[in-house]
Amino acid sequence: MANLRNAKSIMKYAFKESLPDTAVAKALENKKFPEGKLVLVAIGKAAWQMAHKAAGTLGKKLTCGIVITKYDHSKGKIPKVEICEAGHPVPDDNSFKATAKAIEMVSGLGKKDTVVFLVSGGGSALFEKPLIPAEELQQLTKQFLAKGMDIVEINTLRKRLSAVKGGKFAQLCKPAQVFTVVLSDIIGSPLDMIASGPAYPDSSTTKEAMEIVKKYDLQMTDTALDLLKQETPKRLDNVTTVVTGSVSMLCKAAEHKAKELGYKTIMLTSSLDCEARDAGSFLAAIAREHGASARPMAYIAGGETVVHLTGKGKGGRNQEIALAAAAGIAGLKNVVVLSAGSDGTDGPTDAAGGICDGTTAGKLLQQNIHIDQVLQENASYNALKAVNALIITGPTGTNVNDLALVLIN
Amino acid sequence: MANLRNAKSIMKYAFKESLPDTAVAKALENKKFPEGKLVLVAIGKAAWQMAHKAAGTLGKKLTCGIVITKYDHSKGKIPKVEICEAGHPVPDDNSFKATAKAIEMVSGLGKKDTVVFLVSGGGSALFEKPLIPAEELQQLTKQFLAKGMDIVEINTLRKRLSAVKGGKFAQLCKPAQVFTVVLSDIIGSPLDMIASGPAYPDSSTTKEAMEIVKKYDLQMTDTALDLLKQETPKRLDNVTTVVTGSVSMLCKAAEHKAKELGYKTIMLTSSLDCEARDAGSFLAAIAREHGASARPMAYIAGGETVVHLTGKGKGGRNQEIALAAAAGIAGLKNVVVLSAGSDGTDGPTDAAGGICDGTTAGKLLQQNIHIDQVLQENASYNALKAVNALIITGPTGTNVNDLALVLIN
Repeated sequence: MANLRNAKSIMKYAFKESLPDTAVAKALENKKFPEGKLVLVAIGKAAWQMAHKAAGTLGKKLTCGIVITKYDHSKGKIPKVEICEAGHPVPDDNSFKATAKAIEMVSGLGKKDTVVFLVSGGGSALFEKPLIPAEELQQLTKQFLAKGMDIVEINTLRKRLSAVKGGKFAQLCKPAQVFTVVLSDIIGSPLDMIASGPAYPDSSTTKEAMEIVKKYDLQMTDTALDLLKQETPKRLDNVTTVVTGSVSMLCKAAEHKAKELGYKTIMLTSSLDCEARDAGSFLAAIAREHGASARPMAYIAGGETVVHLTGKGKGGRNQEIALAAAAGIAGLKNVVVLSAGSDGTDGPTDAAGGICDGTTAGKLLQQNIHIDQVLQENASYNALKAVNALIITGPTGTNVNDLALVLIN
Repeated sequence: MANLRNAKSIMKYAFKESLPDTAVAKALENKKFPEGKLVLVAIGKAAWQMAHKAAGTLGKKLTCGIVITKYDHSKGKIPKVEICEAGHPVPDDNSFKATAKAIEMVSGLGKKDTVVFLVSGGGSALFEKPLIPAEELQQLTKQFLAKGMDIVEINTLRKRLSAVKGGKFAQLCKPAQVFTVVLSDIIGSPLDMIASGPAYPDSSTTKEAMEIVKKYDLQMTDTALDLLKQETPKRLDNVTTVVTGSVSMLCKAAEHKAKELGYKTIMLTSSLDCEARDAGSFLAAIAREHGASARPMAYIAGGETVVHLTGKGKGGRNQEIALAAAAGIAGLKNVVVLSAGSDGTDGPTDAAGGICDGTTAGKLLQQNIHIDQVLQENASYNALKAVNALIITGPTGTNVNDLALVLIN
């Protein structure tokens, strides 16, 4: 089945193109910096890989740098760069210490100096300097969650209680220029949300902050309240931002490879966010419509679907997409549906996702495995495993959401 | 907003093209029949409209005919055609009497004679001659349902207990030719399923029938068991079948009109069958991807989504698609999502569906209507009504499933 092989090869290419290393190399390629100091600050779960590649690319031009990543996420020394590991998803003392070091490193820079700021997911916790005592911030965060505030509301307040979030880190770098490279793990790449946007103008206002306090009847100290009344930067004239890894680029890379393999490509979306099994059914419905097409076709969808648990089985959203699609394409020839997470981990499993064709449902039935029942139990992993339909990549080193493919011929 | 107008005009055109009248006219256009008798047999919920159009088209060539439709579904006399109304969804005495008349009408026909057989949804109940006493069949049907048998299993048995289902009516017409025109209300138009396929070769076997009896430990009389052992026709050399109304044709008509209006069209599927709100989210994700496209684009999907009730509100699957999509396209300019049932009735409401654009979610919020909550309560009708986003067509006279559209520009 050439189809299965093509699907996997499109996926592998797209994942490789989305590696932090590739992403950083693309962003720094041919980039000219002013002739001053060049300071590297890398934060997030992919900080080490991004910094490693950047240091290699910048070479002698690099003055100094710092990596702030999650525990066990750094992989050795990088010349001129200090490696710090800290708490995630809850910030700890090491987060604060490392952030203080980064601030020190960008302090006193001049107009001709540049901060190369590499941002990846997880930066919110790893990169933090609270303007109130850490314990108070923790108590407040608990209160926010208990009151059912949404993430936009929480961030509107948190940005004001932080010395680095909401564009404030870029202010601290002034008068130096900040060149930000973002590896996005959030659909749509909202730049003031990724790592809470330390170098991106904040769109929230103090008026909104005060309305939130009133709406939820929040209890806070006067110091905290005073901070909420201070406006975040709305313009940052010293920042250039490049989004280099994102689910949108993951899809574009898949499209590129599919075209190379001779497929006519249809990009459906890079912001898929519905229930996983229904996304699988929708993709199968597309496959049924075009299954008889003589021309090789590739339908591409990226994003991050959701699973509302109804059972206690082992599985993941990409595996549910593949399994639901298997039911919908049963018996069709020349059709393949693949879905996989670009980080190589789908749910709490060692699989990245699943891949199925018109024979998958029949093979499952032969083993008395009923797809509806498996989905009800959220037990996609063992079902796909039983028919050799899991995709196992191991950790890929990137995380730009998921890729789903429908290949016809 | 030209968009909203275009979406509605595409929908109206597609519905009109799917009317039984239009469908029959297309099928009989330029059709030459042998020079014998021409007998019309029309069954199903759209039987009267189909027969009315056919009688008009065939004119003097028509010998005689019969309409068997649901109570209150005939709209007057048709020359040379007997009009019968009967029970649906449960067959009654009038079903059996009318069916007997139809059988009489096609008995004794010769080789050069033709039966024009017009089939629409609902034919299973309306067109029936049981080979066991009606009461026994009713008891058996109850047993089938109580044991949780699926529709394919039930039909495998029912076809064998009937004198007309599973291709047997076509056998009764022999040696006359049967020209069948099918108006399909089932996705994928499985011809042995629509009205239980009175003139279509049956794919089930007696072996399967006996396995089903064993599997569910069914209790039946010896007469019934003997009938199950008799094979249904696997080939019918006197039948020609034309599917003229179907969800696939509904989509093609929409595509035709969209092209005429200057849209580049992408046919996604004509067999959409996932959860309604997730179909809406998927369509919105497509809209988000291409919302910035300069070229006018139309994405077309047909089918019949499902709603798993979580609340007790008033609404329908098409209204849920539109409402879920409204959340996903909030703020986007030049994007419209429409979803509507071709029969003009969506769920137990007087609306056919809903239509929304980038302003819909904001308008709902202004009225303190939260889309998530409305979907949770399955109360799409009043929410859409509040922002003037319902589509009201009244009964359209056809029923070929649902049409969903994403228009960009």
